[in-house]
Amino acid sequence: MPEGSLSHSFSISTGPLPASRKVYVGGRLHPEIRVPMREIDLSPSAKEPPVRVYDSSGPYTEAGAAIDIHAGLPPLRAPWIAARGDTEECPGRAVRPEDNGLKPGEASQVPVFDRAGRKPLRAKAGKAVTQLAYARAGIITPEMEFIAIRENLGRAEALETAAGGHSFGAAIPKVVTPEFVRDEVARGRAIIPANINHPESEPMIIGRNFLVKINANIGNSIVTSSVAEEVEKMVWGIRWGADTVMDLSTGRNIHTIREWIIRNAPVPIGTVPIYQALEKVGGVAEDLTWEVFRDTLIEQAEQGVDYFTIHAGVRLAYVPLTVNRVTGIVSRGGSIIAKWCLAHHQESFLYTHFEEICEIMRAYDVSFSLGDGLRPGSGADANDAAQFAELETLGELTRIAWKHDCQVMIEGPGHVPMHKIKENMEKQLEVCHEAPFYTLGPLVTDIAPGYDHITSGIGAAMIGWFGTAMLCYVTPKEHLGLPDRDDVKAGVITYKIAAHAADIAKGHPAARLRDDAISRARFEFRWRDQFNLSLDPETAEKFHDQTLPAEGAKLAHFCSMCGPKFCSMKISQEVRDYAARGMEEKSREFREKGGAIYEVLEGRAAAAD
Amino acid sequence: MPEGSLSHSFSISTGPLPASRKVYVGGRLHPEIRVPMREIDLSPSAKEPPVRVYDSSGPYTEAGAAIDIHAGLPPLRAPWIAARGDTEECPGRAVRPEDNGLKPGEASQVPVFDRAGRKPLRAKAGKAVTQLAYARAGIITPEMEFIAIRENLGRAEALETAAGGHSFGAAIPKVVTPEFVRDEVARGRAIIPANINHPESEPMIIGRNFLVKINANIGNSIVTSSVAEEVEKMVWGIRWGADTVMDLSTGRNIHTIREWIIRNAPVPIGTVPIYQALEKVGGVAEDLTWEVFRDTLIEQAEQGVDYFTIHAGVRLAYVPLTVNRVTGIVSRGGSIIAKWCLAHHQESFLYTHFEEICEIMRAYDVSFSLGDGLRPGSGADANDAAQFAELETLGELTRIAWKHDCQVMIEGPGHVPMHKIKENMEKQLEVCHEAPFYTLGPLVTDIAPGYDHITSGIGAAMIGWFGTAMLCYVTPKEHLGLPDRDDVKAGVITYKIAAHAADIAKGHPAARLRDDAISRARFEFRWRDQFNLSLDPETAEKFHDQTLPAEGAKLAHFCSMCGPKFCSMKISQEVRDYAARGMEEKSREFREKGGAIYEVLEGRAAAAD
Repeated sequence: MPEGSLSHSFSISTGPLPASRKVYVGGRLHPEIRVPMREIDLSPSAKEPPVRVYDSSGPYTEAGAAIDIHAGLPPLRAPWIAARGDTEECPGRAVRPEDNGLKPGEASQVPVFDRAGRKPLRAKAGKAVTQLAYARAGIITPEMEFIAIRENLGRAEALETAAGGHSFGAAIPKVVTPEFVRDEVARGRAIIPANINHPESEPMIIGRNFLVKINANIGNSIVTSSVAEEVEKMVWGIRWGADTVMDLSTGRNIHTIREWIIRNAPVPIGTVPIYQALEKVGGVAEDLTWEVFRDTLIEQAEQGVDYFTIHAGVRLAYVPLTVNRVTGIVSRGGSIIAKWCLAHHQESFLYTHFEEICEIMRAYDVSFSLGDGLRPGSGADANDAAQFAELETLGELTRIAWKHDCQVMIEGPGHVPMHKIKENMEKQLEVCHEAPFYTLGPLVTDIAPGYDHITSGIGAAMIGWFGTAMLCYVTPKEHLGLPDRDDVKAGVITYKIAAHAADIAKGHPAARLRDDAISRARFEFRWRDQFNLSLDPETAEKFHDQTLPAEGAKLAHFCSMCGPKFCSMKISQEVRDYAARGMEEKSREFREKGGAIYEVLEGRAAAAD
Repeated sequence: MPEGSLSHSFSISTGPLPASRKVYVGGRLHPEIRVPMREIDLSPSAKEPPVRVYDSSGPYTEAGAAIDIHAGLPPLRAPWIAARGDTEECPGRAVRPEDNGLKPGEASQVPVFDRAGRKPLRAKAGKAVTQLAYARAGIITPEMEFIAIRENLGRAEALETAAGGHSFGAAIPKVVTPEFVRDEVARGRAIIPANINHPESEPMIIGRNFLVKINANIGNSIVTSSVAEEVEKMVWGIRWGADTVMDLSTGRNIHTIREWIIRNAPVPIGTVPIYQALEKVGGVAEDLTWEVFRDTLIEQAEQGVDYFTIHAGVRLAYVPLTVNRVTGIVSRGGSIIAKWCLAHHQESFLYTHFEEICEIMRAYDVSFSLGDGLRPGSGADANDAAQFAELETLGELTRIAWKHDCQVMIEGPGHVPMHKIKENMEKQLEVCHEAPFYTLGPLVTDIAPGYDHITSGIGAAMIGWFGTAMLCYVTPKEHLGLPDRDDVKAGVITYKIAAHAADIAKGHPAARLRDDAISRARFEFRWRDQFNLSLDPETAEKFHDQTLPAEGAKLAHFCSMCGPKFCSMKISQEVRDYAARGMEEKSREFREKGGAIYEVLEGRAAAAD
């Protein structure tokens, strides 16, 4: 498509999901905040209130939303940031041709986002503008209250129906208070990725005692797709539930595309700055320098990237530990750094300049996502010496970052067979001092390329249950090619399943509400409600209609699997009616005859009336 | 399609998978047996022998196989059965119109399989012809030796490279001997579903100390599909790895269709006889009688069904325990029996005539699959009083069946959140005396109709790891409609992933061989080998080609995700070369200078040479 005709040639996915409305809940400490949620209306016969669900999709799913990607989203956090009085505008680093992979003097074909004179912010001298610094100072920021309301799905009080669960030592409260958010951030057990230059983002939290989050990756790789397509990839990902989006682009025009994405993103955006830094030195790992890397950090921090993957744990001495692996080093960033370390025979600039990196992160509140450059690329290499050596270093770096008031999460594998997942989680909690874990999968077997959303979804559900705070999605194209639109959706839905299954198993008080609502709908043959309550209403309805397309079938008291005669749900309802009446009657009869056989059952049958 | 033109109008899937050859391994105790395996050839550059994998697909995947579904498969077990001298031909029950859901005198449009005069076998008076009876008598049947060879994938000796794992008290041997198979069957910890009237089946075993198996369901439901289509569904399911197939048909012509399926099935076939019995009484549960049910058991046993789901654990007193459930009774068979119990206010004929059922099972070696009629239909109902009450009764019935020399496995749920899966498995092992568990999923959340192969694949992998011996697949259409060809494949592949992940986590000695082979192929950019070693070579190649279609790209030392410059595998290989040479050199240099910093690393680097 011609890049110049951006707005006409590619459409952004907008509009609510079926039967859904966007609602906003206000704050108490900060009355100006408006926390978005999605309410799913049920059919009148349900006689149930709408079901509220967590909603990461931003204004795009508002009914009649006027979306203009040229203007970007409203900067909802701008007044909060300004009110703190600890930031100042700066001229900002000038964009250079090499930021976009262009030769000096070469013009880009990609239109530039019009910032309308908006300048980057940075911390005033001596100020730490991170949510961690505020939390430590006892401050409850609007971001923190926003998150408390969001995590509760608007519940004001503790749920009496909390569903049990086993949380492996997590401390999930019955109701999330702003104070709890602050305290979790203060002790480093949760992070709020919220760059002061990304005021468009709706605050969210990543931590073991909150809902498990998921990340979707987008990126243009070699043959760049268009700007609008890149924005739509992000919008498409969050429409289905991605909580953050990582832009892993490596081709030309990445600076420009990143600007478009951030200005239109209601979720935190993460990047791996070493990718762009490498582009700037012509792709030769050995030629990377601290100066080029530092320049890239500032470039991206000024644009508003919310978290950076930094592979500072790849130490020179660990590289030989990977030599006998089946799959060596599979992290892109890790392999770049390993090559640099060997070529120079010294520790990487990420490691030696780590405190300077902290100073940059702190000046914009960019969160660390400490990269696992030595993660295993096969089950055979899982939990090996190289992986765990790096993890211990990440733990040391966490303490240093915390010293600088920087927020930190830790990246994890990758490929891990089921019996080694728990060990991995426990080791991370121990050596990284409970900093949030952010894992890719893990894949529990290597033999199913084409289905690695599933092989990794299994591992993701388990490690999410054990304590991972955010799960990085894997699409069906993993190991094979670049994901298309359908792959992104399959990856996001699979990871929503994994994250939600983990929330239930951990005993999150509200997690099972949606399950119970859909189960009741299923039992009562409210087909429409079953579709609407599902993670993917369109697919659910489409699958149903392939067998029973008539609209009348959606009201039918049976489904296609059994047919009217055999439907177990239908028979089961008859059993319920029968038991509620018949058993009580029979029980009375038995009692009258002096029999005691139904004493126990009577109480239950009566309770069903 | 016109049913009369069967052979011309629908094609059966035949031919080998890519780069694969069917090989046969002979027996020692029984030299006549030929155990099928699949060998996947690798590219010459791999310098590795072919990889052997378990192969349930039967003769259909032989190169140039002459398949004639009108003739059926060769009855490979017939001479083994005959040699035991404990069976006799019988006239067999005459087929009646109601067996096919026809009115008296009504002609069927479906062609009848020509048995060419073959008569049903049954045990001679007083004989038990079950594999359990033979095992208890110390006999190693050809079936048992066949299985030992099959489970070992032809390995003659214990693998030194056994991969660790954690088996939760299972006793998986380093190499499976015929004696081990016999002993596991004798103590009821494994079953060999092998009806004497299904000699076409290639023996397989279901037990906690063997490879985890998977079942695929097929069925025609209301609007019957054609005979050839039903046979193809079975062939399609085993092509992708189903170890057994359950025929859940409930429409017209089910007797006739079942005959076509069994005569062409190299895997054990299971059914739920109560479905057909109910058809015979016009679909009115209350009208079911022991006589009708008994007649159906004999009808199907004479055809060669290898295992029957029998819901004998649904006791009258348990029905009221389901009244306050969110989703009541969701098992079709369970709800039929529950309704019968309430209508008659007495225990079901399955329970009261259980010993007579055992006598029938024993006369044909039909294995019990004791049905979980009260399994939960939602996470909310998991592990409740109704489910566990029934499970305890199944344990009691197991002992009774064993007394009659009958083989038994136990069916399990359904819908179970992750934190309750282990409790379920432990309870089953305890109260059912280690009889093999056969579970449907379980689904770990209820909110993803359209993706329930995934929600259940998560639970299946976990419960398979904890000890379930066979996993019943769930397709993407679960809860919504009838699976088509693509759904069946998606279900089977997902469950192969779950079963294989469980084998790895349990520490099965050979399980990781295929993973390691594919990981090496991935690391060395042997794309063809990566496709061919995967569970679904066609999809893997198709996905790869969507990004990089040129044949040359399959030899390229990079992939589409990173491009040539960024490929981490490529850089990692450079690191490996560098480290193998460079580190040793550096190490020497350091040592010469008196430094000790690389002493530890030196050993590892040198080992890579």
